[in-house]
Amino acid sequence: MENVTLNVSGMSCGHCVSAVEGNVGKLAGVESVKVHLESGKVDVTFENGKVSLEKIKETIDDQGYDVE
Amino acid sequence: MENVTLNVSGMSCGHCVSAVEGNVGKLAGVESVKVHLESGKVDVTFENGKVSLEKIKETIDDQGYDVE
Repeated sequence: MENVTLNVSGMSCGHCVSAVEGNVGKLAGVESVKVHLESGKVDVTFENGKVSLEKIKETIDDQGYDVE
Repeated sequence: MENVTLNVSGMSCGHCVSAVEGNVGKLAGVESVKVHLESGKVDVTFENGKVSLEKIKETIDDQGYDVE
């Protein structure tokens, strides 16, 4: 299991938290995802063989947010 | 038909626009609703006999926003 903290810009409210946590959280291989709205950080715990970091970043990007 | 422009604070993103437009828009008696995100204004056209201004304000408030 791996842990990563991503810097994400554009998240502004509870709906944004739900969009990111909901969509990343339902990826097979993601164990947990937690958005910290004020700091713009997203903590993700995932199984590297099942889901790639690239896929996680792409999922956040697809919701309309910029991942550094 | 009446037109009103409400000042609403706390709307920050497209999800907020959808929450307000979607929920106000489905009230019986509301003909149209348009959120202007940058100015925090919400234009509503409604039929006063079918829906009250108070009900419209309450619906926005229920979504977590402050109506002046």
